[in-house]
This record gives sequence, C-alpha cells and structure tokens, in this order.
Amino acid sequence: MKNEANKLLFAVDIAGTFVFAIEGATAAMRGNLDLLGLMVLAFATALGGGIIRDVLIGDAPPASLRDWRYAAVAFAGGAVVFFLHQFVESVPGGVILVLDAAGLSLFAIAGTQKALVFGMHPFVAILLGTITGVGGGTVRDVLLAQVPSVLRADVYATAALAGSAVMIAGCKVRVPREWAAALGGTVCFLLRVISVWQHWNLPGVRG
Amino acid sequence: MKNEANKLLFAVDIAGTFVFAIEGATAAMRGNLDLLGLMVLAFATALGGGIIRDVLIGDAPPASLRDWRYAAVAFAGGAVVFFLHQFVESVPGGVILVLDAAGLSLFAIAGTQKALVFGMHPFVAILLGTITGVGGGTVRDVLLAQVPSVLRADVYATAALAGSAVMIAGCKVRVPREWAAALGGTVCFLLRVISVWQHWNLPGVRG
Amino acid sequence: MKNEANKLLFAVDIAGTFVFAIEGATAAMRGNLDLLGLMVLAFATALGGGIIRDVLIGDAPPASLRDWRYAAVAFAGGAVVFFLHQFVESVPGGVILVLDAAGLSLFAIAGTQKALVFGMHPFVAILLGTITGVGGGTVRDVLLAQVPSVLRADVYATAALAGSAVMIAGCKVRVPREWAAALGGTVCFLLRVISVWQHWNLPGVRG
Repeated sequence: MKNEANKLLFAVDIAGTFVFAIEGATAAMRGNLDLLGLMVLAFATALGGGIIRDVLIGDAPPASLRDWRYAAVAFAGGAVVFFLHQFVESVPGGVILVLDAAGLSLFAIAGTQKALVFGMHPFVAILLGTITGVGGGTVRDVLLAQVPSVLRADVYATAALAGSAVMIAGCKVRVPREWAAALGGTVCFLLRVISVWQHWNLPGVRG
Repeated sequence: MKNEANKLLFAVDIAGTFVFAIEGATAAMRGNLDLLGLMVLAFATALGGGIIRDVLIGDAPPASLRDWRYAAVAFAGGAVVFFLHQFVESVPGGVILVLDAAGLSLFAIAGTQKALVFGMHPFVAILLGTITGVGGGTVRDVLLAQVPSVLRADVYATAALAGSAVMIAGCKVRVPREWAAALGGTVCFLLRVISVWQHWNLPGVRG
Repeated sequence: MKNEANKLLFAVDIAGTFVFAIEGATAAMRGNLDLLGLMVLAFATALGGGIIRDVLIGDAPPASLRDWRYAAVAFAGGAVVFFLHQFVESVPGGVILVLDAAGLSLFAIAGTQKALVFGMHPFVAILLGTITGVGGGTVRDVLLAQVPSVLRADVYATAALAGSAVMIAGCKVRVPREWAAALGGTVCFLLRVISVWQHWNLPGVRG
C-alpha cells in the first residue's frame, strides 16, 4: 500500500517535471536560444525549484540529481519542444494552463511535505513549498534576463502559497497529512485556474 | 552576561533585517511589482546575504530559515512599505542612509564572525562577511533584471570589505573579538556614510 | 608519484582559474563597472562553476573557499586586467580562445571527476562537469543582466558536455580514469577551438 502510494507520487512528480520542462523549452524557443540553451532552460525550469529547496533544507545532493530519471525526463520535455514545436504550439492555451496548474500544485505540496519531514517550522515550510513551485520559473526568467513573471502579475506564486498554507492548516487541525495535502493541492489548482479565467490579479502598490 | 549579549545581538540582527526588508520592498514598488513580488523582494534583500553565506559555509538549513522570526520580520518590513508607502517615501534620505549603513555594518561583521566560527581562513572570512552584507541587495537587483548596484558605483561593498578586514586584522593582533568586531563595524559604517556625503567613488577601469 | 600528479593537477587548476578570472574582469571592464565590480566578476567567473558544483554535490564549504589560494589567484587575475588592461586588450583573440578552451576543458573534466568521486550517477556527472565548466560564465552574464552567452550561441557548453561524455564513456569501457580524462579534455578542447575556427553553431529552433 505504502509502495503503491510512492509509485503514484513518483509518477505524478515525473509528470510535473515533464510539463515544466516543456514550458521552459518553449520560453527558450521564444528567446531565440539554440538547442543547448533550450535544454538548459527545460532542465532549470523543471528541476530548479526542487534543487533550491533541497539546498536550503540541507538535503544535498538534491533528490533530482540523485535519481537520473528526473534529468532524463526534463531533457525529454526539451526534445519534444525542439522536434515537435509546431505541435506544441498548436496545443490550446487552456490545456497548457491546466497542466501547468497541476504541476504547480504538485510541486508546492511536495515541497511543503519535504520541508516538514526535514523538521522546518510550518511557517517556513509554506515558504519552501512556494519556492519549490515557482523556483524553476524564476530561474528560467533570470537566465532570460527578465524580471521573473511570478513577481509581476497573476495569482501564481500566491496560489502555491495558499495551497501550502491550507495543507499546513489542515495538519494543525489534525487532518491526516494525505488529506491535508490533497486539499492544499486542490486549493492551489483551483485558485490558479479560476484566477486566469476571471482575470484576478494581486493589488500593486500603485493600484 | 553571555545571554544579555546574545539578546542584544539578536535585537540588532532583527533591526538590520527590518531595514533591509524595507529597502527591498521599496525597490519592488519602483519596479512596479505586485504585493507578492514586493514580499519576495523584501525577503530576498533582507535574508539573501545570510542565506548565501550559510549555504557556502555548509550551515544548512540557513539560520534565517531555522528561526521563523527572521522571515516574519522581513515580511513585516514589506507590509510596512505596502500599507504605509507614502510615509516611507517621506522619510528623509539621510535617515535611510544611516539605517542602511548600520544594517550593512552589522551584517558584514556578523558574517565575518560566523565564517570564523566555522573555521574558514581569515581571508575567506572577509569575503564571506562582504557577501553577507551585500548579497541580499545583489539578489534583489538580479531579480529586477538589473546589474547589481554594488558592482557599479559607490563605496558600498568596499565599506563592508574594509570593515571585515579591520575586524580580522584586529583579531590577528589579539584585540578581543568583541572589540575587533565593534571597530570593524564602526569603520564600515563611517566609510559608507562619509563616502556618500563626500561623493567618493572607486576608480573605474576607464577612470 | 601520486603527489606529483596532485601537484600538476593543482597547477593546471590554478592556471584555469587565472584565465577565467581575466575573462570575467575583461567583461566587467566592458560593462563599465568599478574596481570592486571587476574583482567580483573575476571571482564569480573563475570560481562560480566549481562553487555551484560543490554546493550541489553536498561538498560545503566549496573547495575554492577552503583553500584561500583560489580566491587570491582570481583577484590577481582581476588586478592584471585593471592595471594592465591595455596589454590585455592587445593579446590576440586566438591566444585568448586557446587559453579559454584549455580552462573550459580542465574545469569540465575536473568537475566530472569530482562528481564521480562523490558517487553521482554517470549521466548526472556529465551534467555536473558541464556546469563546472560553464557555471562561472553564466553567473558573470547574469550579474551583467545579460542572457548567458552559453545559452545562445557557439559550441561552448556543448564542447564541455561532449568532453565529459567522452570521459564517462571511456570509464565505462574500462579505460583507466587518467586516460579517459585526458581523452575527454582533448575532445572538449579541440571541439571548442575547431568550432570557432569553422564557425560551427548548434541548430536553433527556428533554424
């Protein structure tokens, strides 16, 4: 049973890695990078958040470098964009949005969970969950010499933050951790999808 | 007595964190980021230098993630800027300069001290002290897709470097470490304030 | 005999650090930074790749911070550019290219070797070797708020990747590690020099 759950978790984790790699590679394509740059951006976007989290909690080497399959899946995502970019571009934006929101939810919840396992304070675990979710995209944007999009607009990091916070709150009121995680992930996913659909934005300072 | 000193150090450390958070949030305001971006920049500016130092000396998780109060103070600084930005903008530049120079001195000296405690070579401890002082501002500028201001102008990192070096030199000639630290911090503070007042700059290559 | 080899390795390592420091400082000069910015870029370019590798494999503090001579050599390289920049600018581009290709080969091979020693999977060791070779230049470009040049053009990271891969392949077919390393380094060096000479480029997505 435990083993089944781990297999499921690994499968979902790999799926999130694949989706984020495709997004990173697509950004590289728009930035006019070459094949290697595309692969680097696929890797950084897919695995950057988890690597930053692992370095910060002191779990070095990071999980995604200990198991070669993560890097392989990230490069596979990059290769798909390189060889099939016309197909990737034809995927409707709504599909990308849903897949990306799923990846964000998964990474945020997995990051929060791992931070708790490593004994971090719940408040810090929320931060680390959020970093896991949005860190890869931030590295991608820094490498493209752009202000990270998560800092500027949309309910994106906020969705990850809210999902992590819901999971932590659930644990505090003694909801079993699996249920708290599922609840937090759902909140993150729905918040992200609904906010794009309804054009929600956080207030700006000048707003 | 020891306990008193620790309490004082913690209080000063928290004060430096608060000042740096306000500066980071103010930069976010000018960069037109939203509330979340502002909080991220407050956090990164206030705690980035110490986090980089701790990762480099192998003290993971970093001290500022082990104690939730650091992050809380950083976010409080961000909230002050968000809700009271008209007040923050009306603070005279001289006050900001003095507070910032105080924060820089404190972080540089604390970073040097911690590097020594972790057994780094004195020469490397000077570098790590400087990184502690200016690392947060560097991360902030990278996130804003700008060349870090510490690399370009002013006697800023140089003040931190000089303060660290004075502290190390003091220890070498057997000045008690508390006195060496106080002396180094004073040198850093004065060098920073006087250099702005007198428009000192480092030579450029073309200068 | 072992000792002789270590001395040789250290000498070559220091030479690579010096060349990379000169390149970083030269980039700072073009970016109009001041003396301190120049020193920071010399340091980051020369030691950034190895520091990132060591943090990722869990060897903190990084080797280049445990031995103060690395930082000293990096700053010496920066000082050469600052005081002798007219001389540095008069060095023919071909000489720089060859020295840089030598530094890249050395760093890539040393990085791969260290990753293997720390028990990383061979596939991940190739990645870490490449990161060791190109990480410093990437940090330099990020600090200059530019898209890292390794992501955009030329066979540069690709040469490091190929050299690392050849070394790993050699080890797999039981070539003694010293020979595999020498072979991998040669492949990296030649690939880099010939690609510049022949204007080779990786395909872009739109190419």
